[in-house]
Amino acid sequence: MSNEPNINDLEIVPNEYTDKDYEVNVSIPEFNCVCPRTGLPDFATIKINYIPNKHIVELKSLKLYMVKFRNMGIFHESATNKIFNDFKEACNPKTIEVIGEFSARGGISTTVRVDSK
Amino acid sequence: MSNEPNINDLEIVPNEYTDKDYEVNVSIPEFNCVCPRTGLPDFATIKINYIPNKHIVELKSLKLYMVKFRNMGIFHESATNKIFNDFKEACNPKTIEVIGEFSARGGISTTVRVDSK
Amino acid sequence: MSNEPNINDLEIVPNEYTDKDYEVNVSIPEFNCVCPRTGLPDFATIKINYIPNKHIVELKSLKLYMVKFRNMGIFHESATNKIFNDFKEACNPKTIEVIGEFSARGGISTTVRVDSK
Amino acid sequence: MSNEPNINDLEIVPNEYTDKDYEVNVSIPEFNCVCPRTGLPDFATIKINYIPNKHIVELKSLKLYMVKFRNMGIFHESATNKIFNDFKEACNPKTIEVIGEFSARGGISTTVRVDSK
Amino acid sequence: MSNEPNINDLEIVPNEYTDKDYEVNVSIPEFNCVCPRTGLPDFATIKINYIPNKHIVELKSLKLYMVKFRNMGIFHESATNKIFNDFKEACNPKTIEVIGEFSARGGISTTVRVDSK
Amino acid sequence: MSNEPNINDLEIVPNEYTDKDYEVNVSIPEFNCVCPRTGLPDFATIKINYIPNKHIVELKSLKLYMVKFRNMGIFHESATNKIFNDFKEACNPKTIEVIGEFSARGGISTTVRVDSK
Amino acid sequence: MSNEPNINDLEIVPNEYTDKDYEVNVSIPEFNCVCPRTGLPDFATIKINYIPNKHIVELKSLKLYMVKFRNMGIFHESATNKIFNDFKEACNPKTIEVIGEFSARGGISTTVRVDSK
Amino acid sequence: MSNEPNINDLEIVPNEYTDKDYEVNVSIPEFNCVCPRTGLPDFATIKINYIPNKHIVELKSLKLYMVKFRNMGIFHESATNKIFNDFKEACNPKTIEVIGEFSARGGISTTVRVDSK
Amino acid sequence: MSNEPNINDLEIVPNEYTDKDYEVNVSIPEFNCVCPRTGLPDFATIKINYIPNKHIVELKSLKLYMVKFRNMGIFHESATNKIFNDFKEACNPKTIEVIGEFSARGGISTTVRVDSK
Amino acid sequence: MSNEPNINDLEIVPNEYTDKDYEVNVSIPEFNCVCPRTGLPDFATIKINYIPNKHIVELKSLKLYMVKFRNMGIFHESATNKIFNDFKEACNPKTIEVIGEFSARGGISTTVRVDSK
Repeated sequence: MSNEPNINDLEIVPNEYTDKDYEVNVSIPEFNCVCPRTGLPDFATIKINYIPNKHIVELKSLKLYMVKFRNMGIFHESATNKIFNDFKEACNPKTIEVIGEFSARGGISTTVRVDSK
Repeated sequence: MSNEPNINDLEIVPNEYTDKDYEVNVSIPEFNCVCPRTGLPDFATIKINYIPNKHIVELKSLKLYMVKFRNMGIFHESATNKIFNDFKEACNPKTIEVIGEFSARGGISTTVRVDSK
Repeated sequence: MSNEPNINDLEIVPNEYTDKDYEVNVSIPEFNCVCPRTGLPDFATIKINYIPNKHIVELKSLKLYMVKFRNMGIFHESATNKIFNDFKEACNPKTIEVIGEFSARGGISTTVRVDSK
Repeated sequence: MSNEPNINDLEIVPNEYTDKDYEVNVSIPEFNCVCPRTGLPDFATIKINYIPNKHIVELKSLKLYMVKFRNMGIFHESATNKIFNDFKEACNPKTIEVIGEFSARGGISTTVRVDSK
Repeated sequence: MSNEPNINDLEIVPNEYTDKDYEVNVSIPEFNCVCPRTGLPDFATIKINYIPNKHIVELKSLKLYMVKFRNMGIFHESATNKIFNDFKEACNPKTIEVIGEFSARGGISTTVRVDSK
Repeated sequence: MSNEPNINDLEIVPNEYTDKDYEVNVSIPEFNCVCPRTGLPDFATIKINYIPNKHIVELKSLKLYMVKFRNMGIFHESATNKIFNDFKEACNPKTIEVIGEFSARGGISTTVRVDSK
Repeated sequence: MSNEPNINDLEIVPNEYTDKDYEVNVSIPEFNCVCPRTGLPDFATIKINYIPNKHIVELKSLKLYMVKFRNMGIFHESATNKIFNDFKEACNPKTIEVIGEFSARGGISTTVRVDSK
Repeated sequence: MSNEPNINDLEIVPNEYTDKDYEVNVSIPEFNCVCPRTGLPDFATIKINYIPNKHIVELKSLKLYMVKFRNMGIFHESATNKIFNDFKEACNPKTIEVIGEFSARGGISTTVRVDSK
Repeated sequence: MSNEPNINDLEIVPNEYTDKDYEVNVSIPEFNCVCPRTGLPDFATIKINYIPNKHIVELKSLKLYMVKFRNMGIFHESATNKIFNDFKEACNPKTIEVIGEFSARGGISTTVRVDSK
Repeated sequence: MSNEPNINDLEIVPNEYTDKDYEVNVSIPEFNCVCPRTGLPDFATIKINYIPNKHIVELKSLKLYMVKFRNMGIFHESATNKIFNDFKEACNPKTIEVIGEFSARGGISTTVRVDSK
């Protein structure tokens, strides 16, 4: 595995309940990355809400994927969209929504939300 | 009764108000089971929301059913879906939704939600 | 008045603003009754939300009606449905919803909700 | 000005942004009036939500209007409806909603909600 | 740059994810301006929720724009509408909503909400 | 009884447990009086903590005493000290503390605390 | 057992850890009794904090003792002191404190605290 | 009055209850000043707790004094100490404590506390 | 290792900062054991506060020690005292306090606290 | 400056108010470091409370010092003690206390507290 977070980091396992839809909400309150302008760390809570199709994402691999953002310079909007794209491609869910809630910088806090609708 | 949670553990009683629909919300904040990978206990709050048909589930029997998960190795998604299937088969409700809110592991918490719609 | 809560306990007064609809929400956090199986008291918050028609229910009489449940053996579902039926018959509201939020017993708490829709 | 709260107490000023709709929410947590049965004070939070038309209500005059209810004997339903009628007539808003959240008396709290829909 | 907050203060940068819509929520809890009647400062939280089109607004420039309101005499309704107009013109978002939540004065607090729908 | 709050408004009843000390804490969250400068109402929570001697103060009479402050022009410091003096003289407690927590005016809130130590 | 709460209702069991002091805090949030003046129920949370001597009080018997207050007319001060006296006599603790936190009546809430110091 | 906050801005009035000590707590949640390094505004809550001697500080004048910090470049430690010194010299209280709770900058928040002990 | 929680389960590691005292607070919110009377699980939060001497307790081993209580029948008082004794013997801390906060049963919740003073 | 956090990273500035003691509380909620066993990040809030002597620590340099822990493998107890030692040596405060509140791992959270008393 490379040092950058990569779709291959996300291990998938078969969904055992494909006969009916159900939702999974995952919350990762200890996400951080690096501001590409200042080089200082940015903190966020990442939330992933999805309806599995034929696969679900194994949580331990998801955590290790998330940890790789720690030393990566990336904007809030880009981090949220990258997670959305990687997660969606990895397990091909029926629907998916990714929310990045970033801590305040200079007294301003931001939230970015992407969904598959 | 077997040691595994089983549909037969759920005692049903007649619904005395069948002439009109009403909702029942049950919350069980002290649910736990065992992670099949690590063997360590997982903690969750289970919520069951349903509109009774001709029967309701007696709460004491529901508690004893839940307690049987304590030493059972099972994934979050499977535990939530199993409760959904057992409860639905036991009392045949008009609508039903089961939510499992699992405590954080490795800084990641998950919620699984199944409904009959 | 009898010792059992009764529709005649509910005093009605004319609605002075019948030319347009408005909502009234009443919250009674100190409701209790007796569990018919154990004989021990059960505690609940009762919420009544309605749109008056030609009458509203006087609050002092509503309180005295509620107090009569204190020593009555009755199930959660039945108590909530009885309040719904009595209140509805007493003042014939345009719409009405009654919610009974019962405190935990054996680590399980329940809410019962009935409405006129 | 009379001692009773009156529509003439509400000073209006022109709305400078009539080209598009916007909402204004006003919250007055220190409202009180007198219970017509017991003569004792009743406390409430009054909320007014409206979309201005050609005028908005000046807030200082609104406060003085509200203060006049302090020694007036009036029921919860009537106070909320009177504020609704006076405010609506004063500034002729596109839509308006008035909510009166009254503190508990005898363990029972009530909320009254009127809107223009 | 002038001392008054101005649309030219808002620096825009290209949106790198134009292939699908996503939302950005910005919260600025440390906004203040001056009451044009009393000359005293008013405090507010400003919230901007938008779906970017081809550009997003750079946050540092947004902060400096906001700081310029500090010594400007302006009404609550006007400040909120001005921010709405400037932000909309600067980055031409697909949808936008601006909310100004102003702290209590004389026991009355107000919220102003403008959106592009 | 006069219209001004007066020590004679406070009804005392014998303390039935004089053989050992115990504390009584009374909280009155719906106190108001009138600002002598602006004529506008001021809102406060009054807290009385005391160790009874041979008498306790009956709560209904305490409430009626408090209600009399509603239309009285008085400063925060004076209201709190007057309640302290009246209550102390009425029931001669072993120790007493009175706290007045006044709502914000102009963004400034004040608390006044008097005790018998 | 009589219908009035009585010291004999409190079952004691031997303290197995008498070699060193430890504290036990018991909280009973569902206590109620009857106001001797109005005949209406009063609600309270009773807290008992004690250091056991040679015995501890069995919790199930404590609950049944508490339930007996439900239909008993008694003042707040007397209920708290009676519980203190009965509990102290039943298990002779090294130290004990009983606190009764009573819900608001007429907008006034009271707390009574007795200890053995 | 100068534009800088000055001891002369603080109007004092006689303390009418000098026969016994009592405490006054003042909370000013809308304080701001300017960071001398960045020129950007800093936000704080200032708390003043004191036991009056022969004078108390009039609250309206205290507010106007506080407002003068708005455009003044000053460090957190200096602002808190200056308020302490000015307030103490103005009314010569028996004891005084000043606390400045400053909002986070760069993810770090600070509190400065000075007292007369 | 046996199936019962045992002092040998607690792995100790050298304290690297023995030149001065410092406190360690450990909180374990997911403790459970079995009620010896009903056979049903009891839930608690266990808190351990200690000043290390020459050793500290490794947290992973502490967790595994705690998990062993899951299927053990034991009273609240005994569980808390046993943890106190085992932890104290394992690492011989300068001071130690163990608190067991047990969830409500029959509407009664209990806390047990043991310390080395 | 090296990549490891070092006392030389802490810039000191003269304390302008040395004539009397005052306290400074600094809170850094976005601290993280790396667990030396698992290589995964640990999150904490660091609190520093001190009474300055002749110098205070400049906050920007404190932040940069804290950021250097991000990729450093270190135990909770060691991180807290190292910050204590570095801060104390850098500005030689009259008193100092450092608290590290670490997020839960395996359901167990820990706090380490060191002070100069």
